[in-house]
Amino acid sequence: MLVNRHYMDLPGNYLFADIARKVSAFREQNPATHIISLGIGDVTQPLAPAVVKALHKAADEMSLASSFKGYGPERGYDFLREAIAANDYRARGIDIDPDEVFVSDGAKSDTGNFQELLPADCTVAVTDPVYPVYADSNLMAGRRIVKLPCTADNNFVPQLPKTHADVIYLCYPNNPTGTVLTRQQLSRWVEYALANDAVIFYDAAYEAFIQDEDIPHSIYEIKGARQCAIEFRSYSKTAGFTGVRCGFTVVPKDICASSAGGRQASLNSLWNRRQTTKFNGASYISQRAAEAIYTQEGRVQVKETLNYYMHNAHLMLTALRNLGYQAYGGENAPYIWTATPGGLSSWQFFELLLHKANIVCTPGAGFGPSGEGYVRFTAFNTRENTNKALERIRAV
Amino acid sequence: MLVNRHYMDLPGNYLFADIARKVSAFREQNPATHIISLGIGDVTQPLAPAVVKALHKAADEMSLASSFKGYGPERGYDFLREAIAANDYRARGIDIDPDEVFVSDGAKSDTGNFQELLPADCTVAVTDPVYPVYADSNLMAGRRIVKLPCTADNNFVPQLPKTHADVIYLCYPNNPTGTVLTRQQLSRWVEYALANDAVIFYDAAYEAFIQDEDIPHSIYEIKGARQCAIEFRSYSKTAGFTGVRCGFTVVPKDICASSAGGRQASLNSLWNRRQTTKFNGASYISQRAAEAIYTQEGRVQVKETLNYYMHNAHLMLTALRNLGYQAYGGENAPYIWTATPGGLSSWQFFELLLHKANIVCTPGAGFGPSGEGYVRFTAFNTRENTNKALERIRAV
Repeated sequence: MLVNRHYMDLPGNYLFADIARKVSAFREQNPATHIISLGIGDVTQPLAPAVVKALHKAADEMSLASSFKGYGPERGYDFLREAIAANDYRARGIDIDPDEVFVSDGAKSDTGNFQELLPADCTVAVTDPVYPVYADSNLMAGRRIVKLPCTADNNFVPQLPKTHADVIYLCYPNNPTGTVLTRQQLSRWVEYALANDAVIFYDAAYEAFIQDEDIPHSIYEIKGARQCAIEFRSYSKTAGFTGVRCGFTVVPKDICASSAGGRQASLNSLWNRRQTTKFNGASYISQRAAEAIYTQEGRVQVKETLNYYMHNAHLMLTALRNLGYQAYGGENAPYIWTATPGGLSSWQFFELLLHKANIVCTPGAGFGPSGEGYVRFTAFNTRENTNKALERIRAV
Repeated sequence: MLVNRHYMDLPGNYLFADIARKVSAFREQNPATHIISLGIGDVTQPLAPAVVKALHKAADEMSLASSFKGYGPERGYDFLREAIAANDYRARGIDIDPDEVFVSDGAKSDTGNFQELLPADCTVAVTDPVYPVYADSNLMAGRRIVKLPCTADNNFVPQLPKTHADVIYLCYPNNPTGTVLTRQQLSRWVEYALANDAVIFYDAAYEAFIQDEDIPHSIYEIKGARQCAIEFRSYSKTAGFTGVRCGFTVVPKDICASSAGGRQASLNSLWNRRQTTKFNGASYISQRAAEAIYTQEGRVQVKETLNYYMHNAHLMLTALRNLGYQAYGGENAPYIWTATPGGLSSWQFFELLLHKANIVCTPGAGFGPSGEGYVRFTAFNTRENTNKALERIRAV
């Protein structure tokens, strides 16, 4: 059968699938070796007790006809959308209506799917290095991509595009560099978008890791963002939901969408059309679990785990710098972006760490050409494994 | 911002979202009225005890670091893909490998997303009436759609396309008409696909409702289908998973995909590329719940609920026919496709039933032009409500 040719033009594999295969080949050859993964950003700490309680309660509800839940609203249950609007936004002085919140099975789906609303011939700007989903999902649709290099020279903060971009993907705290943007830096992007009729796809999946008080958690803390930005959020790292699957996207009603023919609609209504047509809502059980994150109990428990991971990040950053590595991020983000030693390429250093230290990292080149010469370490392993990994790196 | 113009060309709303709004407007004006829904195909019976037990067990696993599950494989856990291959296929003498099974958050997502692999300019054939997702998802991508009318004249069995179709969506047991295809009828489609280098997207979401022994449950019961058909399956109706969210798609490795440039790949590997890039796997908890359907205990419990719904279908079909309605389906499917009385349009009969009998059905015209003059009733309500609804229809 004939297929979409853009799929054929892609690199053969999704980055993390590629790494998983290399690691599993090594594991097969060295079955007794204890491998420590600081690679894919998966968490290790269990779900918060408040979340587990909510899972059990939801399971019990599903066992009785009187409380059984079938299809939910495609955009998510009111109880969760209201908790999100109240806790993630109104509590920070941001005006977001529950009807602007779309609950999903995770930010990867939303960041991958949202480009469907774009015309085929628009120009998409992404940072380089970048979370592969933004670039790959647009390449699959045949769109032109402009890369905005982020290197040590610009402190990993991209410059505004030199040629017109219709859409800009930004992710802060950044995956993979761990960089954050100040309010002033983020304001420049909102101003650019407003002046150029562009839209910002803002991925705030890691906002819960921000420690500095003056770093914005949401792009809607910036004036004008309601007119030009959508925001993706995730519970994956915030509350260990990588296996539970729940996240959400905010699409303000102020963003006006128009087609080449001149017809207009709100972007919010178009995304609703997409979600009602191709998605049937996140699991009821996962949505009740997400709701529990916002309880007093849940909040305290989740914060404790975040602190645990951020202490890992602190230990890693300190140790790597003491060993003479150029290491970035790790202060407001769970990622440490580390220059490879001795002029090794990203994949060479990946192989070296895998074979000599039995540590898995993510080669920076996998995130784009400007990632060459770096690897990404994550702070999501246990304290014990993190310390062990640092010892092994010391010994390499 | 400029958007995909095809979204602007769509009817404003997804069919079932439209109905939900009409019903909720009626409910607001008549708060004391007991409305019975035989409309959207949502189930009413609780999850099977074996499934609930699996949900609790999975929740407990997530509460301990030693058994916590983070990101799973995007295509689903081995335990579930192996259970599917063994029970849904090998047990029926069909050779499907677990690596050909892709677990997802539901068949709606998969039937909506799979068209991404098609070229923009291919011709897609759908039956008329049709589950709106097949048509809408292709319209959103700007593809040309050919409709294959299914009317009482052809016993709701479509004729082969008169002009070349690259892709054909088939759904049997059919939503909305409740029709099934015999082995011989289905064979003609496989032969067409093989002879015309076409591919069949086969939606078998309702296979568990088949009662007649000689009706195929899977398109892979037909010789040659491994070379030309993918199959979508759902736990939504089979096991009441509309709120749990889990389903799967089978993509045989035998289907060869080629691009206009002549490059080749297996369709299986391209779908894997799509899923690894834009999806992060179904919830671990939902996958464990799905696994429980295949246990001895789960099987018996699920079958009992299926029988309950099929008895509803039997009562409805008999009563409607006794009242002089022309009613179809309902024997191997949970849907009853009923001609409107007295020359009423689908939406007129929908309004009549809502206002005079306080019953929600689905207007056939919402499924396509050939659905005009019909409504769809579902067998998924309780016995009590089903009987009450039939009494009310009798009184109209």
